[in-house]
Amino acid sequence: MKSDINRLMRERDLDAFIVFGGEEFNSARYYLSNGAKITHGTILKARDGEMLLVCGGIEFAEAQKSGLPVKTSAELGYNDRLKQSENSATEATALFFGDLLREIGLRSGRVGLYGAWQVNKTIALYQLLAAQSQYEFVAEGSPTVIETAMLTKDDEEIARMKSVARRCNEVMQAVWDFIASLRRSGDLLIDAAGRRATIGVVKDLARRELMARGLEDTGMIFAQGADGGSPHSRGEADMPLQIGQAIVFDLFPRELGGGYHHDMTRTWCIGFAPPAVQAAYDTVMDAFDIAVETYGLDKPTHIMQEAVQDHFEARGHATSRSAPKTLCGYMHSLGHGVGIDIHERPSISHLARKDTFQIGNVFSIEPGLYYPELGFGMRVEDLFVIDSAGELVSLTTFRKDLVIPLRDEA
Amino acid sequence: MKSDINRLMRERDLDAFIVFGGEEFNSARYYLSNGAKITHGTILKARDGEMLLVCGGIEFAEAQKSGLPVKTSAELGYNDRLKQSENSATEATALFFGDLLREIGLRSGRVGLYGAWQVNKTIALYQLLAAQSQYEFVAEGSPTVIETAMLTKDDEEIARMKSVARRCNEVMQAVWDFIASLRRSGDLLIDAAGRRATIGVVKDLARRELMARGLEDTGMIFAQGADGGSPHSRGEADMPLQIGQAIVFDLFPRELGGGYHHDMTRTWCIGFAPPAVQAAYDTVMDAFDIAVETYGLDKPTHIMQEAVQDHFEARGHATSRSAPKTLCGYMHSLGHGVGIDIHERPSISHLARKDTFQIGNVFSIEPGLYYPELGFGMRVEDLFVIDSAGELVSLTTFRKDLVIPLRDEA
Repeated sequence: MKSDINRLMRERDLDAFIVFGGEEFNSARYYLSNGAKITHGTILKARDGEMLLVCGGIEFAEAQKSGLPVKTSAELGYNDRLKQSENSATEATALFFGDLLREIGLRSGRVGLYGAWQVNKTIALYQLLAAQSQYEFVAEGSPTVIETAMLTKDDEEIARMKSVARRCNEVMQAVWDFIASLRRSGDLLIDAAGRRATIGVVKDLARRELMARGLEDTGMIFAQGADGGSPHSRGEADMPLQIGQAIVFDLFPRELGGGYHHDMTRTWCIGFAPPAVQAAYDTVMDAFDIAVETYGLDKPTHIMQEAVQDHFEARGHATSRSAPKTLCGYMHSLGHGVGIDIHERPSISHLARKDTFQIGNVFSIEPGLYYPELGFGMRVEDLFVIDSAGELVSLTTFRKDLVIPLRDEA
Repeated sequence: MKSDINRLMRERDLDAFIVFGGEEFNSARYYLSNGAKITHGTILKARDGEMLLVCGGIEFAEAQKSGLPVKTSAELGYNDRLKQSENSATEATALFFGDLLREIGLRSGRVGLYGAWQVNKTIALYQLLAAQSQYEFVAEGSPTVIETAMLTKDDEEIARMKSVARRCNEVMQAVWDFIASLRRSGDLLIDAAGRRATIGVVKDLARRELMARGLEDTGMIFAQGADGGSPHSRGEADMPLQIGQAIVFDLFPRELGGGYHHDMTRTWCIGFAPPAVQAAYDTVMDAFDIAVETYGLDKPTHIMQEAVQDHFEARGHATSRSAPKTLCGYMHSLGHGVGIDIHERPSISHLARKDTFQIGNVFSIEPGLYYPELGFGMRVEDLFVIDSAGELVSLTTFRKDLVIPLRDEA
């Protein structure tokens, strides 16, 4: 939680930190600035000191919504530094970061660098910062101080994520209802107006339903048949929906304009499920139950993945543990933390051996099986929170039925 | 253009480059992989050699849509490197990047690093890469080889941006039509069903209209009254629309799921414009015309900004040239390149003295005036392309009327 940051800085011997970069993909800045909508801006904090948000004058009003003290870069002398460095923005920024550290009272010490930015700019800036020998600039490994704080959500964050979950489940229901309302036309499906239903139509519906609830899509997967056999294949808009094909629907929207995510996946067959798909689905659902049963507060996360890998391997499926280069079977991690980023800590992977389950974690459990050569793939995913009693609670209430029945077959 | 990349690498003495990082905000990777929708993936290229896209197995199918040769990281030995480095992903990645450079035939030389990633991970990776002394890893300043290629759009990119522009202009018209259909209720406005019109209602309409055209909002500004006096204030959803208040509507959507942007701004007064607002608007429109008249192929971009600053200063307005710390008057750059990123080169700023106008540039011209203490701000912005004849052509056809007349006042 945010309230852990001073303690974490002390444990890691950090005297201060600087968070910089753009708006997109910059969860550290979003988190610390309480979601202020600024395109650029730098956050500084000395250990046990107040945070300071520095931005351009044109973003001053939005920056103040962060609730942090705000100063403009002009007011703190950035333009003078730009002149001094003959308009090299990187040189000016390196000098300016020194000015800002002195502004928050730090004359020397260890300074963590966080945020998200272009690779070349980050490295060029780091090279110049490293020349300021009164400071030692630190690139922490994951999870950083900020990622560690983000790893345990506070009550307000969990309340927001429950709200996103509720709305995301409603959208899943709306898509189910739409598909259930279709009529067969051979192996394909048509709507009440006689139009052929495609993946594009379904995705458009899902996006509209998300937006109507203040959410935005961040790249949903709706992949049918062999496409669903590639875990991250997103589905082709022009492809018509077909009966009896496994469909992987992975929906991971966030609050409109950036914010907290939900992440859930269902696998559906319209009308009926072929026996091979039903059998694989039963195996995946068993894996899901095994994962949940393996949970325990303070346990290492990797044992959950290993229990699921044991299960799949015992039933003859390749896994990325038994066959690291496999492109079929079960070849991804079992789950990941979710929050402002869609992929956070903890990792639930046999390769990530340091994470443990902690109160306030929000993470996915998502076993799957993928056989593109057999024409199908599947995954079932709920998002869970570990509540204040240490119990594992699913935020994803939507049913896990494989088959969406059609009325003319009911 | 992409076809310039080998020449640019030669001019800058680069033997190869590596583009890495996540999906969001990673325009270099989007550009080189032709928009492939992969969450992680690394692109390598030796000068005069073919590009290679390396990704996890679960993203193989999507990665192939890039049209580039694709290999999986498992196939190239990443897992062995991970084992060797005792599961430190950063150490493994540094070793693996060396493997990948040898895979594309490079045993030594200068290697540019591009992409977008978390600051701490980028620096930690760079520190480890720097230890591989057969290579010199280079952090180019802006504009990099890739940014320079992106700076001149090819015919296919311009065709896409014209399509986005056409759709964005249609959305602007739909919002105008909605506002023009409202009825007065005192100083406020109500719709046909008697509901009060708010900024939130307008933004929801705009988002729906964008989505219906295959576009997505990336943070539109619809800021009324004093809020519009802060150039990057985005507007409060609950605020009711009011007659006679200047509204800054800055719309900068992109292709759904990530892609090319449009960027346009209009300033509107509903019903009527107060004289001070009308006078300032006339000054801004004059600035806009002066900017366009100052254009010339191969001219430095900063002279366009300086001509506009001359104009504003002569009329008594502070600018960020005459008063660098001013929070009112005209205090931003005149324009910026637009493409996969909303802010690209060229910059049109008195501080950016190296950019010149080139065929294939797509950039905004957006003068404005901001007086939050007087209760208003305004900006007018079109997106322009420099066509193959060197002519400046606006992609933003929507009218520039200040006043949206209401029917009961027509």
